[in-house]
Amino acid sequence: MNFKEKLLRTADINKSWLCVGLDPDMGKLPETLPKSIDGISQFLKEVIDATKDIVCAYKPNSAFYEQFGVDGISLLKDIIDYIPKKIPVILDAKRGDIGNSSRMYAVSAFEHLNVDALTVNPYMGYDCVKPFLDYKDKGVFILCLTSNPSAADFQKRLVNDDSKAAKMIYELVAEKALSWNDNDNCGLVVGATSPSELSEIRKSIGDDIPILIPGVGAQGGDLEASLKAGGNSNGQLAIINVSRSVLYPSNKDDFADKSRERAMELVAQMRALLF
Amino acid sequence: MNFKEKLLRTADINKSWLCVGLDPDMGKLPETLPKSIDGISQFLKEVIDATKDIVCAYKPNSAFYEQFGVDGISLLKDIIDYIPKKIPVILDAKRGDIGNSSRMYAVSAFEHLNVDALTVNPYMGYDCVKPFLDYKDKGVFILCLTSNPSAADFQKRLVNDDSKAAKMIYELVAEKALSWNDNDNCGLVVGATSPSELSEIRKSIGDDIPILIPGVGAQGGDLEASLKAGGNSNGQLAIINVSRSVLYPSNKDDFADKSRERAMELVAQMRALLF
Repeated sequence: MNFKEKLLRTADINKSWLCVGLDPDMGKLPETLPKSIDGISQFLKEVIDATKDIVCAYKPNSAFYEQFGVDGISLLKDIIDYIPKKIPVILDAKRGDIGNSSRMYAVSAFEHLNVDALTVNPYMGYDCVKPFLDYKDKGVFILCLTSNPSAADFQKRLVNDDSKAAKMIYELVAEKALSWNDNDNCGLVVGATSPSELSEIRKSIGDDIPILIPGVGAQGGDLEASLKAGGNSNGQLAIINVSRSVLYPSNKDDFADKSRERAMELVAQMRALLF
Repeated sequence: MNFKEKLLRTADINKSWLCVGLDPDMGKLPETLPKSIDGISQFLKEVIDATKDIVCAYKPNSAFYEQFGVDGISLLKDIIDYIPKKIPVILDAKRGDIGNSSRMYAVSAFEHLNVDALTVNPYMGYDCVKPFLDYKDKGVFILCLTSNPSAADFQKRLVNDDSKAAKMIYELVAEKALSWNDNDNCGLVVGATSPSELSEIRKSIGDDIPILIPGVGAQGGDLEASLKAGGNSNGQLAIINVSRSVLYPSNKDDFADKSRERAMELVAQMRALLF
């Protein structure tokens, strides 16, 4: 089963397009847990146990693990291994390098950590993305339009194109992703903070490409607008990633229940719209 | 002493702008060494011993270590720690994420691994680069125009700009880097495969910003042309990175001598031109 089949199946069974971002922050750990790698491990595993029947995927961000050095990479592997095999894991690492090096990053993500999908950065072009796409059963989410304010610095630059109407760099990335999708394993990352652009991107890429949508919650994006703008004509493949607001609603020992409660609020909104 | 001072001092003492890329490839290890992490460690340390008086910096590429999983990260730390403290280490990891996450990557590179400089990807804009630049004593090399064929996909797109002459995305990146250089710690990455563009970029950024230039050797870039095009008006700050051709000239037990020989050939060309 390839990444997209696994994603669609989990979304269907769990009736959810919620992806929980597993981004450990030592300073926000519940006060009942030790402020250590072990404390983080216990915390994330309890959150996984409390949400695994209401998510479509989990997304650990590599930066939050790398901050702890070698021990953090062991923790990342441990957390990925803990997630039930039927739930897809998207590693948010925003990798990309010349072909030879991208191949090594692909080995790291897809063979050592054994995740189902990876986020990649398109700045260096096709030959840097292809080594990831060559893993036919794995998903590759290409950064398109991100949710941060400075996304405008380069992504929103209007490009001259001799043959067609002018378009922005992020629109060109979406167009390229569609043309790179021979293995049906391309995805895009588009922030929830731009619902109108999200809607235009979905129209331009059609129904088949999943869109990973960060920025709902702490960053201010709207859930319903994102689902409507990002979903395909069947209401599918708009993956709503929420990290901080689901992970840290409580710093007491009820944290897992509160995480589930917060996740369930979001999922209830999704179900009212889509399932 | 900040990164640039350390770089200039080492280049001056060693009379060299050669940066050796420490990119371990198990398949190319000398046949006398075990095909293992220990074998790689021994190999890289012997290459470092054989070249440390004729380089301006070392550049390990994170991908080549991450390919070995957790053990690879320990190896990376071990190799970085082995490099004499007076020689700057540039970690080639091409990181970049929203501010919160970039801060974690900065902790990983600058505090855990304790490297002197890092390569970063500009696609997400200023707020994703700033957390790295905030480390005033560390260098931040921003990808500008890379040496791979697909660099043209996005980097060479012509951007409409109301106020000024049209420019390409990579020229805009160079212009931004200059404006982000408040701490005098910005650098650029420009491939040796484009000497005329390299020369234009050096003119546009002035004398103060170091340029990391991969692509000489295995990728076909010319050493002399790159030094002339990338150097400032004092013939400084064009860092020529060579990986494969210095690391793997021999697979016998004379490998360290051969590495030094190959490095010395390049350095001799540099000295004839610049020192």
